[in-house]
Amino acid sequence: MEYNPFHNGHLYHLTSARELVRPDYTIAVMSGNFCQRGEPAVIDKFARAEIALRMGIDVVLELPVVFATQDAGGFAFGAVSVLDATGVVTDVVFGSESNDIGFLQRVAQILYEQPDEYQKFLHEELKKGYSFPNARKYALMRYFSMKGWNEEEVLRLEKSNDILGVEYIHSALKIGSNIRFHTIKRVGAEEKDTSFRGRFSSATAIRNLIREERWEEVRDSLPEDSFEILMREINEGRGPVFLENMGDFLLSFFRLKNMEFFERIHGFSEGLEKRFHICARQTGSYQDFLECVKAKRFTFSRIRRLALFSVFEVNKEFVEKSNAKGPQYIRILGFTEKGRKILSLMRKKAKLPIVTNMSLYRKVLEKTDLPVDKQLFFEQIDLDVRTTNFYSMFFPAVEQRCGERDFSIHPIFLRTET
Amino acid sequence: MEYNPFHNGHLYHLTSARELVRPDYTIAVMSGNFCQRGEPAVIDKFARAEIALRMGIDVVLELPVVFATQDAGGFAFGAVSVLDATGVVTDVVFGSESNDIGFLQRVAQILYEQPDEYQKFLHEELKKGYSFPNARKYALMRYFSMKGWNEEEVLRLEKSNDILGVEYIHSALKIGSNIRFHTIKRVGAEEKDTSFRGRFSSATAIRNLIREERWEEVRDSLPEDSFEILMREINEGRGPVFLENMGDFLLSFFRLKNMEFFERIHGFSEGLEKRFHICARQTGSYQDFLECVKAKRFTFSRIRRLALFSVFEVNKEFVEKSNAKGPQYIRILGFTEKGRKILSLMRKKAKLPIVTNMSLYRKVLEKTDLPVDKQLFFEQIDLDVRTTNFYSMFFPAVEQRCGERDFSIHPIFLRTET
Repeated sequence: MEYNPFHNGHLYHLTSARELVRPDYTIAVMSGNFCQRGEPAVIDKFARAEIALRMGIDVVLELPVVFATQDAGGFAFGAVSVLDATGVVTDVVFGSESNDIGFLQRVAQILYEQPDEYQKFLHEELKKGYSFPNARKYALMRYFSMKGWNEEEVLRLEKSNDILGVEYIHSALKIGSNIRFHTIKRVGAEEKDTSFRGRFSSATAIRNLIREERWEEVRDSLPEDSFEILMREINEGRGPVFLENMGDFLLSFFRLKNMEFFERIHGFSEGLEKRFHICARQTGSYQDFLECVKAKRFTFSRIRRLALFSVFEVNKEFVEKSNAKGPQYIRILGFTEKGRKILSLMRKKAKLPIVTNMSLYRKVLEKTDLPVDKQLFFEQIDLDVRTTNFYSMFFPAVEQRCGERDFSIHPIFLRTET
Repeated sequence: MEYNPFHNGHLYHLTSARELVRPDYTIAVMSGNFCQRGEPAVIDKFARAEIALRMGIDVVLELPVVFATQDAGGFAFGAVSVLDATGVVTDVVFGSESNDIGFLQRVAQILYEQPDEYQKFLHEELKKGYSFPNARKYALMRYFSMKGWNEEEVLRLEKSNDILGVEYIHSALKIGSNIRFHTIKRVGAEEKDTSFRGRFSSATAIRNLIREERWEEVRDSLPEDSFEILMREINEGRGPVFLENMGDFLLSFFRLKNMEFFERIHGFSEGLEKRFHICARQTGSYQDFLECVKAKRFTFSRIRRLALFSVFEVNKEFVEKSNAKGPQYIRILGFTEKGRKILSLMRKKAKLPIVTNMSLYRKVLEKTDLPVDKQLFFEQIDLDVRTTNFYSMFFPAVEQRCGERDFSIHPIFLRTET
């Protein structure tokens, strides 16, 4: 989840998921300060974790930045890997436009097995100049058609939740996880829908409302606790944080770099390094830069993600290694009194070291008997820390910008009311 | 020169220098967009070159950034090397507080020859924890005293112009230049003096007046043409540019870096890499950061310079190589009609390739028969280009921020009035 911010749709999802699987505990893995659209979160991860706990999540885990800022595939792989590594998660419920788990599983199986015919189709579609998501869609359609299945079904995969859903199942197959997946029919506005749609506006629409300071409509779109904490953060000068606040930084940073720099960064291919290099010099604002880089085969989300990878210096080898070996730790952002119990169980069953107090992460690594790639552990946690430090430089209030929040803010503990 | 901005003191210097050596032509080597105090120039290099031409300089050369942003030693070495490489410069006149060329030459000779006793004294003074400039001063005093000279004379070296003067002569000795040096008694305010002192205010004081928009006092401190062009730049949105505009960028940038990053950068030693790393996280504003890093043995200028080296990624090897081999090209920023003639002569006599049109710099390098370190040539010119691109991101007007000014702005040509 991104909970950026936690809105009525998230609450609906949470309530429905509970009814569906009647869990003993609920655990969420959440993006930190940077999200999958290549943007900063509107308020920081500690506040967003606090909201999630108040809304009924028992334990909030942080999805390491290297996964949180990747495309749907990398994001889903990181999220499922963290959940699986807890050793206590049995069921995952995700929102889905199609609400057809059988269909999603069928597609995931193709992506996992990569039958020869599918690979051939994909290759051909990519050659036609389609973006990867589109090429994949057309290749799947051809594969469905070849199998005599209804190829129209594949068009469902234009919806972001279904795309993610497929990737969750695909990831579980890759890591051999026993997690069961369930879908809930997604209600309300689509994420792409940027307009206010009453109670069930999309997160994008809500961020626009925040940007425009339309507080009444923001209030209508969020559960009370979420609105309250959002306003607290804003009043204390720790938000809202928007990509446009970082625009000048990003463009200035790119101006200092050469093409060779971008070549080392994850995700740069197909001449994107040249486009970044040239566009950073030809344009004077970040919005103009994005439009300059844009082409049919590159989505804006991808360009924004690459921009973040660049300033964070997320290089190709690091991402390849992360995507091969998965997350190397489980970071706890917060838990409730009830969540404490499942945390105790997790400490026994987890497949990765658990980092609760960041100041002790080196000790956690020293003590663990679990198979961990130490270098990768440090690289992943270092990226989380650096980006948290970077993020807080964009808090509106200068006096809030002191860094090291990963160390100064302890995991949020929410005492359950009795 | 930095001409940041060109003020009445500069005009006085130029007039007096002319009277002193009665030159056929006057050539100035000027810092580009970043200066020796580790700060951006208040208006950009093309405008400052234009002013210099209007004030009577015939040819303005650019001091490559790798030298312009170093301490007095590196700055002077770069400047004298460029002037010497023209093959046409015979005399250099610099401002001096002591106005005692014999004394400055004596000190330069010691720095050049590095007698054993002097080296021993220097080592001892550094060990006491003094900053390098102070340790050197005390070592020189002890050496003077040992020689039976008046050690009090050395105290003159607290003045910035005399320090630079010694470095000019020292540099000429190092490269075996035949350039003759002359001094002019410096008049008016000291550079350190930040207050308005009427017609002869210091450049620092004038920048403060610009910051405070006290235009009448700015006008009083500058020659008419200098004021006019300064105001033109400001009205068109290309200035003023101040370090504080870059503060958030610098601090955000440091937050993304680890200690190992700083270790590779020129000038980091004595634990400064650790101080940068920690202070960038402990403070939320650049001013607080500078004060956090500051210690007795580090001057603010040095810290500011290191900050620029960091964002420009000026590493140790590059500076060592530059300081060993000198500048690898002569960059022409502007010339007058009269200056054209000396430029023709320069093309015959120069010891380095001359870059007039930046778009052709690769061709210039291909064609030259002069002994040039090609890799160093590219590294030095690349730093100039990258920093110019970076600088223009801090123009107040967004529409002025398009990059590549090094390629889009041709050298300034000033037709002499008839």
